[in-house]
Amino acid sequence: MLGKVVLVGGTHGNETSGIQLINHWKRHGVPEHLAALNLDLVIANHRAIEDNVRFVDEDLNRQFTYQALAEQKDTLEAKCAANFNIEFGPKGSSKTDLVVDIHNTTSNMGATLIILETDHFNTQLARYVKHVMPEAIILVEDEKPIEEHGYLCTVGNKGVMIEVGAQPQGVMREDVYKLVEKMAIAILSFCTHYNENESLVDTPCEAFRLGETVSFPLDDNGERTAMVHRDLQDNDFAPLLPGDPVFTAFDGETIGWWGNEVTFPHFINEAAYSKLHIAFATADKCEI
Amino acid sequence: MLGKVVLVGGTHGNETSGIQLINHWKRHGVPEHLAALNLDLVIANHRAIEDNVRFVDEDLNRQFTYQALAEQKDTLEAKCAANFNIEFGPKGSSKTDLVVDIHNTTSNMGATLIILETDHFNTQLARYVKHVMPEAIILVEDEKPIEEHGYLCTVGNKGVMIEVGAQPQGVMREDVYKLVEKMAIAILSFCTHYNENESLVDTPCEAFRLGETVSFPLDDNGERTAMVHRDLQDNDFAPLLPGDPVFTAFDGETIGWWGNEVTFPHFINEAAYSKLHIAFATADKCEI
Repeated sequence: MLGKVVLVGGTHGNETSGIQLINHWKRHGVPEHLAALNLDLVIANHRAIEDNVRFVDEDLNRQFTYQALAEQKDTLEAKCAANFNIEFGPKGSSKTDLVVDIHNTTSNMGATLIILETDHFNTQLARYVKHVMPEAIILVEDEKPIEEHGYLCTVGNKGVMIEVGAQPQGVMREDVYKLVEKMAIAILSFCTHYNENESLVDTPCEAFRLGETVSFPLDDNGERTAMVHRDLQDNDFAPLLPGDPVFTAFDGETIGWWGNEVTFPHFINEAAYSKLHIAFATADKCEI
Repeated sequence: MLGKVVLVGGTHGNETSGIQLINHWKRHGVPEHLAALNLDLVIANHRAIEDNVRFVDEDLNRQFTYQALAEQKDTLEAKCAANFNIEFGPKGSSKTDLVVDIHNTTSNMGATLIILETDHFNTQLARYVKHVMPEAIILVEDEKPIEEHGYLCTVGNKGVMIEVGAQPQGVMREDVYKLVEKMAIAILSFCTHYNENESLVDTPCEAFRLGETVSFPLDDNGERTAMVHRDLQDNDFAPLLPGDPVFTAFDGETIGWWGNEVTFPHFINEAAYSKLHIAFATADKCEI
């Protein structure tokens, strides 16, 4: 039985869909069939939204490790994290059973549900979302225990993220907004079914399990020598086979995929990871 | 006969294509057939590039009216403008015959050449670019005399802008980069032909003339009540007929085009104009 559920937008101030959905539902109420949930609608970083930036001082969605929470740093986002942890946590023994945190990406990832573990709850949730929303992608980031993640959603006893794109930072696209709304409703609908002990989805569903991040090639001065190849661009979660084009060097050369196995790239050319020179992340296909 | 030509990238620090093209050509030289030009390659706003932002204090591409240049404000971009004006101007009696300023947009405007007047030079340039690059769009912004514009390119005796999208801020897409490179080469190739008095293009070409900007609908609190309709999104320069969908209100209603005539929207949902609540600009089709 789920008690408090918290739906969050504006963890990153330039990811517009979640901010709009939260504000809209605050003003006009959530869809009627969700009214029984003990649901809080929360805007995470007002200042970043005002400034139309991902964050003011540092990434809020990396401030929720136990270590970062203990440090009590003086940054805007560290304070924001501390407040969120007091109000909806504390992480590890939380008054919130589920945190759903809404994000956008400049990558063409469609409507992706990110789960951090494959326990009964998350597996059932993912299967349900995929069942009512076949276009959804399930991405599993369980490379470490959930409590070691720094994500905002780990403040809840359970936590998931909605990640929808492609959408430029600071822009709201109708297609992306509608996918965010549909996935949020799907997740919250699952919560009502879960609480009413209704029979859930038995059949396994397709998912992707995060692999590693792949960096842009750099020269000795740390300058990029290549860009994402046009055939890879926008093809998030499509199979990338050994030898398939990955980068186009500025001298014109094509750099093929050097892996020995098929992989499923995502977060391809995400603006927020550009500073770190991350070109994309890999994933394996799996069933959960 | 054109003397000095200046090709500029990084007027906005998060518009990556021009920055990359300038840096690449600085390191590896321009294509051989352009070597006869008296060409300077310039990065306009290094600090904004470092910070991966459009601007630090204010929009550099609005600092070049006579009034703004005379004010000598204390902002980073005002200083940047003053320096550029000294080095490559001064505006009104410039040592530079042509400034070509490279931009990106989050709108799906393809490869657009923006000209600010339809004199012999600009008309010939536009026709040549359209001739060698039929996918190019010519956009005429001659609603006021060129010297009244605040654009950086008005520092030259002639000035044009390359505007290519769709590309999110801070991201480099290969398709967009290749279009920028192609249009820059087309413009510079025209300059060599012009200087060699080679016969130019006689036949008029299709163009669009800027109309007005259209704002998002706002409520009494200044909050948006609608988003760009999914049928308008990405359809820059496609005809918008009276009654065609323009906005989707958050209550679900569709708002149709209220104009009495066909128009050609562009800069649809451009991230940089979002703060001003500008949804798009209109244009009429014309011939030059």
